[in-house]
Amino acid sequence: MGAPMCRNLLRHGHSLKVYDIAPALVRTLAAEGCEPADGAAQCARDVDCLVTMLPSSPNVRAVYLGEEGVLRRIAPGTLVIDCSTIDPIAAREVAMDARARGCRMIDAPVSGGVAGAEAATLTFMVGGEAQDYEAAKPVLQGMGRNIVHCGASGNGQAAKICNNLMLAIEMIATAEGMALAAKLGMDPKVFAAIVNTSSGRCWSSDTYNPYPGVLEGVPASRDYAGGFGSDLMLKDLALATDAAKAARQPVLLGALAQQVYQKHSVDGHGAKDFSSVILQYLKP
Amino acid sequence: MGAPMCRNLLRHGHSLKVYDIAPALVRTLAAEGCEPADGAAQCARDVDCLVTMLPSSPNVRAVYLGEEGVLRRIAPGTLVIDCSTIDPIAAREVAMDARARGCRMIDAPVSGGVAGAEAATLTFMVGGEAQDYEAAKPVLQGMGRNIVHCGASGNGQAAKICNNLMLAIEMIATAEGMALAAKLGMDPKVFAAIVNTSSGRCWSSDTYNPYPGVLEGVPASRDYAGGFGSDLMLKDLALATDAAKAARQPVLLGALAQQVYQKHSVDGHGAKDFSSVILQYLKP
Amino acid sequence: MGAPMCRNLLRHGHSLKVYDIAPALVRTLAAEGCEPADGAAQCARDVDCLVTMLPSSPNVRAVYLGEEGVLRRIAPGTLVIDCSTIDPIAAREVAMDARARGCRMIDAPVSGGVAGAEAATLTFMVGGEAQDYEAAKPVLQGMGRNIVHCGASGNGQAAKICNNLMLAIEMIATAEGMALAAKLGMDPKVFAAIVNTSSGRCWSSDTYNPYPGVLEGVPASRDYAGGFGSDLMLKDLALATDAAKAARQPVLLGALAQQVYQKHSVDGHGAKDFSSVILQYLKP
Amino acid sequence: MGAPMCRNLLRHGHSLKVYDIAPALVRTLAAEGCEPADGAAQCARDVDCLVTMLPSSPNVRAVYLGEEGVLRRIAPGTLVIDCSTIDPIAAREVAMDARARGCRMIDAPVSGGVAGAEAATLTFMVGGEAQDYEAAKPVLQGMGRNIVHCGASGNGQAAKICNNLMLAIEMIATAEGMALAAKLGMDPKVFAAIVNTSSGRCWSSDTYNPYPGVLEGVPASRDYAGGFGSDLMLKDLALATDAAKAARQPVLLGALAQQVYQKHSVDGHGAKDFSSVILQYLKP
Repeated sequence: MGAPMCRNLLRHGHSLKVYDIAPALVRTLAAEGCEPADGAAQCARDVDCLVTMLPSSPNVRAVYLGEEGVLRRIAPGTLVIDCSTIDPIAAREVAMDARARGCRMIDAPVSGGVAGAEAATLTFMVGGEAQDYEAAKPVLQGMGRNIVHCGASGNGQAAKICNNLMLAIEMIATAEGMALAAKLGMDPKVFAAIVNTSSGRCWSSDTYNPYPGVLEGVPASRDYAGGFGSDLMLKDLALATDAAKAARQPVLLGALAQQVYQKHSVDGHGAKDFSSVILQYLKP
Repeated sequence: MGAPMCRNLLRHGHSLKVYDIAPALVRTLAAEGCEPADGAAQCARDVDCLVTMLPSSPNVRAVYLGEEGVLRRIAPGTLVIDCSTIDPIAAREVAMDARARGCRMIDAPVSGGVAGAEAATLTFMVGGEAQDYEAAKPVLQGMGRNIVHCGASGNGQAAKICNNLMLAIEMIATAEGMALAAKLGMDPKVFAAIVNTSSGRCWSSDTYNPYPGVLEGVPASRDYAGGFGSDLMLKDLALATDAAKAARQPVLLGALAQQVYQKHSVDGHGAKDFSSVILQYLKP
Repeated sequence: MGAPMCRNLLRHGHSLKVYDIAPALVRTLAAEGCEPADGAAQCARDVDCLVTMLPSSPNVRAVYLGEEGVLRRIAPGTLVIDCSTIDPIAAREVAMDARARGCRMIDAPVSGGVAGAEAATLTFMVGGEAQDYEAAKPVLQGMGRNIVHCGASGNGQAAKICNNLMLAIEMIATAEGMALAAKLGMDPKVFAAIVNTSSGRCWSSDTYNPYPGVLEGVPASRDYAGGFGSDLMLKDLALATDAAKAARQPVLLGALAQQVYQKHSVDGHGAKDFSSVILQYLKP
Repeated sequence: MGAPMCRNLLRHGHSLKVYDIAPALVRTLAAEGCEPADGAAQCARDVDCLVTMLPSSPNVRAVYLGEEGVLRRIAPGTLVIDCSTIDPIAAREVAMDARARGCRMIDAPVSGGVAGAEAATLTFMVGGEAQDYEAAKPVLQGMGRNIVHCGASGNGQAAKICNNLMLAIEMIATAEGMALAAKLGMDPKVFAAIVNTSSGRCWSSDTYNPYPGVLEGVPASRDYAGGFGSDLMLKDLALATDAAKAARQPVLLGALAQQVYQKHSVDGHGAKDFSSVILQYLKP
């Protein structure tokens, strides 16, 4: 869980025990009033609620199921909230093990970025039992604005990666449409205005347009700095296409979008906002 | 120009001379007060304004530039409005020839479907000189609600095909996202509600959702009857990818979307609404 | 028809009348013993056989069917051989008009490149009546080695563009396989040797390998100079995907291959040999 | 390891201890002279050489690294040959653990199918130390004909999945080219003959042509029965695209080929030979 999320929880009156693999971060948070812990498992003891946020499925498995893992230390009855973005099947397996240990566990991946974390306006997509969702809601409301129940365990993950699959394809759709319109001689602003009142409109065209100069205050207007990095989108596309493989579900455009972002990353743009994928279509 | 468009012009007090290759249609309109003509060229004489609507670029070239074509008969100064959806380069060439003949010509492809034509709520995307756009506006307002100036000659076409390129990709994005979410165990309505307040939202997800039962009153709720046919979308995708070829502009997802619609058409779904492309992703 | 092809015909004892839009080329060939002509139509008069080679379908239509076109001047009974690579439907239309004029016409697109033209080792893929193919054979054998009858009119074109569609996809397949094997830690030469005795072998892997250093004497070993240019492959892919559109036939990988070559061309590699498409996959 | 492979080893004079999760298979092999074992770990004790063949990476990890796994029981110095087709990184990890335990381990995935296993004509692609490859050669020669050293540990896997990535793309290339040529009016046999002496030739076109009636004795001539199943190809494409993800290497056509096979499988053709993918392109 990031520092801004911790601060928002402190601000809401919660007492926090914290651990991160970066000792400096733990020290900083300790100076701000959190109790430092020596590891994830120690964090999980003597608390009402455990919140984790980890980079990938193997990390989540290791932290929860490993020999020194959280589920060997945690008290039955603890409410467990995993905010990592991982694959839905892994999320379901860990939740099942947590229930076997007597804990209530939900998956609650998050969207909204660093800005949303700081402003406590994140969206949490929650998978799990309705009563556990209700129990977690007050905690999550300390960090976010939209707390959506997506159904059973793993569905928070499913909602997030399917949304991001659509988002990635639509961003590339917008990039291709804008670039082609410009090449055919249209003013990009005029074209965007038309699309945004027509059937081609999408969040990527009307709120986060990738063409430089069309909208103010978006990454496209500041050389794609900030925002949601292309490599993070690439990671979510990997999760989505992996989940589709496991579910034996075709996602033709999704798979191609994953490749376009892979090429974009190899070309050196992984750290730029994901709307920079339009650079694949604009002649330098 | 279709019969509903003619009727709306009559209703607005215009006198009409009409021609169509289907004699029955001409007779019907004559009975409603139009003057029947023997051919396109005859329609073009002794009128202030000529409006045409034809199925493809070769038809437009033949009607305007052929040996018995409109441009050999039309009086200099006539305002010419072509409502066909064709490729932007063909539109520019015909407009140039019209100007050489002393006429003012605009391209004004239309969106909104049969329902929009009947209700006079069509959108016209206009390419041509600003003054010719202004001159055509009162005529077009008799048939439509949004009359948008897209820039110079051909830009009406460019705007329409680039919008529809984005629309087709976004429709498939929605189909892939909805189908994968359902396969992963989510309720399609719940997932749609989440996407439609998130970054994955688009017209295809929030207004025209292809998953059966998510929205009422859309083709997906009536077995994909009515609406905008898959084969019409396939035709527009052919125009868009051809224009991209001519402009030497890559459109990776656009080209794949064209193929998905081609496969969908070969599979026998060409007459169904274009949101039926989700059938490529749902197991029967 | 290029200069090397003319020289080979001269060498075989034919008398030639020649025309090209480049006057210098006509002068050069005149100095070598050809009779210079003032235009294509003049070439077509008082000859037993007319051979043409033009860059695109519109050129072929213009030269044969235009107001000053060949078919208005040519004597009935003349054998007509068009060596252009164009779309099969255009080839069929022109051949039909030629037959209406009393001429026998075949389409005979060529492969083998400049080197093949000079060495008279070209392959001609011939579409047309069996007897016209037989009549043309002695002429074509003066310029090439393999003279293949592909069936009725237009089938020479169909054979060529379908072969090149497969070739482009297989070249990219080889590029992706070689690049991935190398990235996974294999020696490219060792991997190529394995593939070339396995089910993955193809002409692009065993004869024209795109990975630098695997084969000697191929474009990949000389920085992709010479050979068959990427932009020429892009043109053939445009013909193939257009023909597929007209035939309502899906070609998913073909359409994506066309896009990959379009991107490669926009990136500035259009003049390099088409095996340079592997540069899209190798980190610089 | 399949029964035919065991029988070939017996025939070469080896003594065998065998285990499989199917008890009936173990009984059958026991009746033929093998010593039955109660588990993989028991097989690994008191032998000179251990050969394993398992369906996926998690199985290989479990059998070798699990709490009751092979590496906890095996004597240092034992030669270990894993014939599973799995991802190269998993193969490298297991081999590293084997070496830590004092064993020599090679990865040796196999191609050639059931027919090749019975006739002892399999190809083994071997990754590992040169001396371990040499040590394993006499064993592998009892089961196969081509024993190829592909380089260091994991390279046997890399060679196999990269070959199969190319194979899948080339099979679809052949399917698209053959289907388009036929749709354009060519005789499929004539077209195949031309391609197979031209630059479009590949193993899929000249040895395993997917178009019905072009070659005799291939799956296409017996309604795609037998051969290498589409679902097995789909599994190998999953391995290849996963390896590409991990290696951050774009494989645009490979990813699309994976999707085409996924769709083919969902359409109910997973058990048919992988050349049946042409059914996606031929109108029923």
